[in-house]
Amino acid sequence: MAHEFTYRRRVEFAETDAAGVCHFASFFRFMEEAEPAFYRSLGAAAYRDEAGRIEGMPRVAVSCEYLSPARYADELEVRLSVREKTAKAIEYAVRFRVVRDGEAATVARGTMRVVHVVREAGEADWRPADLPARLRDAIEVAPG
Amino acid sequence: MAHEFTYRRRVEFAETDAAGVCHFASFFRFMEEAEPAFYRSLGAAAYRDEAGRIEGMPRVAVSCEYLSPARYADELEVRLSVREKTAKAIEYAVRFRVVRDGEAATVARGTMRVVHVVREAGEADWRPADLPARLRDAIEVAPG
Amino acid sequence: MAHEFTYRRRVEFAETDAAGVCHFASFFRFMEEAEPAFYRSLGAAAYRDEAGRIEGMPRVAVSCEYLSPARYADELEVRLSVREKTAKAIEYAVRFRVVRDGEAATVARGTMRVVHVVREAGEADWRPADLPARLRDAIEVAPG
Amino acid sequence: MAHEFTYRRRVEFAETDAAGVCHFASFFRFMEEAEPAFYRSLGAAAYRDEAGRIEGMPRVAVSCEYLSPARYADELEVRLSVREKTAKAIEYAVRFRVVRDGEAATVARGTMRVVHVVREAGEADWRPADLPARLRDAIEVAPG
Repeated sequence: MAHEFTYRRRVEFAETDAAGVCHFASFFRFMEEAEPAFYRSLGAAAYRDEAGRIEGMPRVAVSCEYLSPARYADELEVRLSVREKTAKAIEYAVRFRVVRDGEAATVARGTMRVVHVVREAGEADWRPADLPARLRDAIEVAPG
Repeated sequence: MAHEFTYRRRVEFAETDAAGVCHFASFFRFMEEAEPAFYRSLGAAAYRDEAGRIEGMPRVAVSCEYLSPARYADELEVRLSVREKTAKAIEYAVRFRVVRDGEAATVARGTMRVVHVVREAGEADWRPADLPARLRDAIEVAPG
Repeated sequence: MAHEFTYRRRVEFAETDAAGVCHFASFFRFMEEAEPAFYRSLGAAAYRDEAGRIEGMPRVAVSCEYLSPARYADELEVRLSVREKTAKAIEYAVRFRVVRDGEAATVARGTMRVVHVVREAGEADWRPADLPARLRDAIEVAPG
Repeated sequence: MAHEFTYRRRVEFAETDAAGVCHFASFFRFMEEAEPAFYRSLGAAAYRDEAGRIEGMPRVAVSCEYLSPARYADELEVRLSVREKTAKAIEYAVRFRVVRDGEAATVARGTMRVVHVVREAGEADWRPADLPARLRDAIEVAPG
């Protein structure tokens, strides 16, 4: 059972802004990227397109609080912790750290709630659905 | 005194994703765009670069809750309401509506807290500063 | 018959980078946005999703040359000129100008070639298709 | 001496669009990311901010031709080949391949020309400058 996952990547230039720092909306891309990396680490996929039948895990609520800037080329650690898990949804607490000269400092904190949905081929609408079995079985709420 | 502002624009193709809808992180671009449009409507600017001395209004906390998808080419209304105002910061409630066939439906709700900061030329760090006089005088908290 | 279209909008903060200027890839978003605005001005749409049958105008080749920086909040003029038109494709020359103090200066030049495609509901692949009748009839190659 | 570099990463969900494929402008982010990864592999940096004095390698011309779609979660190989090298500039040919089931297929081809520039602290303008010594010494034009 897994309740935590850390995803690492650099801040890219396209993700910065004219204030010289990582643009605030980029953190939502970081948290979104971390999620399928977590599922892949468990042998599962969050998104599937089979002849038009699509399964996904869209975000239904997200938030982020910015403590200190991240900068271009910074090494970023995005840690997801499972905060809540229901039949159809998972909520993560997200911590963003920057590692400079071997020291890690928290630069932002956020939350992300995802829900499993399915859209049948040829349909326009999505409906909520139970979590894929693999995720249901492999993921648990973080202690504390 | 102003306590509310509505910004309108379409959802662009680059802002959609493979689920066929407006990508969740795009809503943060929309709320960010609405803010300087609000200040311009008051004759003020949120960002100034004068020979390297930079004034800005970075976001210190944001959130968004997604109720229903927005789609490519949808006409979007982003309404900012002033929820709190201090000497150095403003917090907005944000409502996103899509107008289809003359009917507006709320597709998302969010919050955005911005703080006024200054970075002197040649310095690396920003410090919080009182709101520009024009914004301090022209903006008030929304009733209710 | 139309052979030219000018689209206007500001450079947004999310489109800048840590060099203090408009990020080079943002210009491709600008040229992409100008295209459906052109078609809308002719009463046509470039993208349609009808119960899963999708018509679009993807880009098959683009280029951009950067002459001078555009900056945050600059008023941008994106002019599309029709350079070539075939049964299934249109190629545009694109000129980007920034208007400061009433003076317009060219900051970049590009090209964009789009082709009309259709994907039937439930299929995975796109096939090239003749231009929609409205675009075929309303668009001509620019003189010179 | 190096004349080629391959950078690998996945297509992320934010980089797709409502046509179900990787958005065309995302390829410019991929080529931009590959470049500093190349320089890092040589022990050099393309971008430096020292107390406001900024050195960078902005793109002065880019292009891309799209042959076949890349999709969400595809493993992407971005190969830079040095096509030209002058005192102040480098031009790359860029090939994008997607690896599916162990087979690599070229999905796009492009070019990217970068020039070395410097902006002194407190100044507004950039001036072209000779390539950093490390890049000048370590990079050569690809044969053929």
